[in-house]
Amino acid sequence: MKSVRTIAVVLFPEFEALDVFGPIEMFGMVAESFDICMVAESVGEVASRQGPKSIADHGFDEKRQYDILLVPGGPGTRKEVDNERLLDWIRDQSPGAEYVTSVCTGSALLARAGVLDGVKATTNKRAFPWATSQSDKVNWEKKARWVEDGKFFTSSGVSAGMDMSLAFLAKLLGAEAAEQVAMATEYEWHRDADWDPFAKVHGLV
Amino acid sequence: MKSVRTIAVVLFPEFEALDVFGPIEMFGMVAESFDICMVAESVGEVASRQGPKSIADHGFDEKRQYDILLVPGGPGTRKEVDNERLLDWIRDQSPGAEYVTSVCTGSALLARAGVLDGVKATTNKRAFPWATSQSDKVNWEKKARWVEDGKFFTSSGVSAGMDMSLAFLAKLLGAEAAEQVAMATEYEWHRDADWDPFAKVHGLV
Repeated sequence: MKSVRTIAVVLFPEFEALDVFGPIEMFGMVAESFDICMVAESVGEVASRQGPKSIADHGFDEKRQYDILLVPGGPGTRKEVDNERLLDWIRDQSPGAEYVTSVCTGSALLARAGVLDGVKATTNKRAFPWATSQSDKVNWEKKARWVEDGKFFTSSGVSAGMDMSLAFLAKLLGAEAAEQVAMATEYEWHRDADWDPFAKVHGLV
Repeated sequence: MKSVRTIAVVLFPEFEALDVFGPIEMFGMVAESFDICMVAESVGEVASRQGPKSIADHGFDEKRQYDILLVPGGPGTRKEVDNERLLDWIRDQSPGAEYVTSVCTGSALLARAGVLDGVKATTNKRAFPWATSQSDKVNWEKKARWVEDGKFFTSSGVSAGMDMSLAFLAKLLGAEAAEQVAMATEYEWHRDADWDPFAKVHGLV
């Protein structure tokens, strides 16, 4: 087991801010275990759906294998599902990655790239019809805060990324480490992957 | 009442990512009501505590009055409490702002600037002793998810900023608008400002 894992956080125009920074907050609290790398098609500024811009320090053309992938959602995914450079990067990285994670409609990008074929996964509940239409080879789960299937962790919409991240930290570093992060961030962690009132709110069940 | 309000989100080195982007997520969901402005001592890149860098599009030297201030916390506040340029900016902006908000140890900066004198406020629960030592003229509340006192909304640590933001949206735009944001972000909103298990976790009560 590696002592420091690289996490590639994928940025694209109109990414959802909390999809990216909720998990980054949780992973960043155990800074000694992760090297957080912001990756985009090109190095430089990328504007979120909310407006504020983040910096990608790494481009898709950089030849390296990341340990963990984190793919966010947001309105930008509507365009990115047709971005072959992004999809190819996911196809290149996914087989060698130790874990592949997504928040919200980020799983639509993983699905479109084909890396979720035969995998159980979930996505944003309001955008469920659109996201799941990106691939009929994925075993989509309507009611789940997040879904773990092998090396894939996919979460429901926006805030669910924080619960998934803590579950992921618990698996990787132990329950105590995840608990410490939840307490330090004063976050009421939903520990049950089946807790999902939003499936009903958005008419899926 | 203005139809679009400017929100100045203050950045400084080692700001806490979720302190900034939790509220931005919530405010950004009602994009027609807010113009989110990232402000720092100088225009350009500012690195968060977690590493990833955000862009400040506005500097403290820009002569304009913002409608709403949002001051985050993070390890950087330990240095910023002695940054007279930041404190002066807070002192300049606060009297003319319609609302002044903070997340986590952001209230330590407001306190140090003197704008919370005689005001009820709260702050991060783990860093409570340090934060409250910045001013003995503030009526510090040990147990509160957030505190509203006049135009000041101060929240407890990190995640509490999202609950405060939703309460603030409810006040400004109505409960239904805040509810819509919580549902869209699949966020279990803590509606009770007195809900604060972390005061006990961190030994304050």
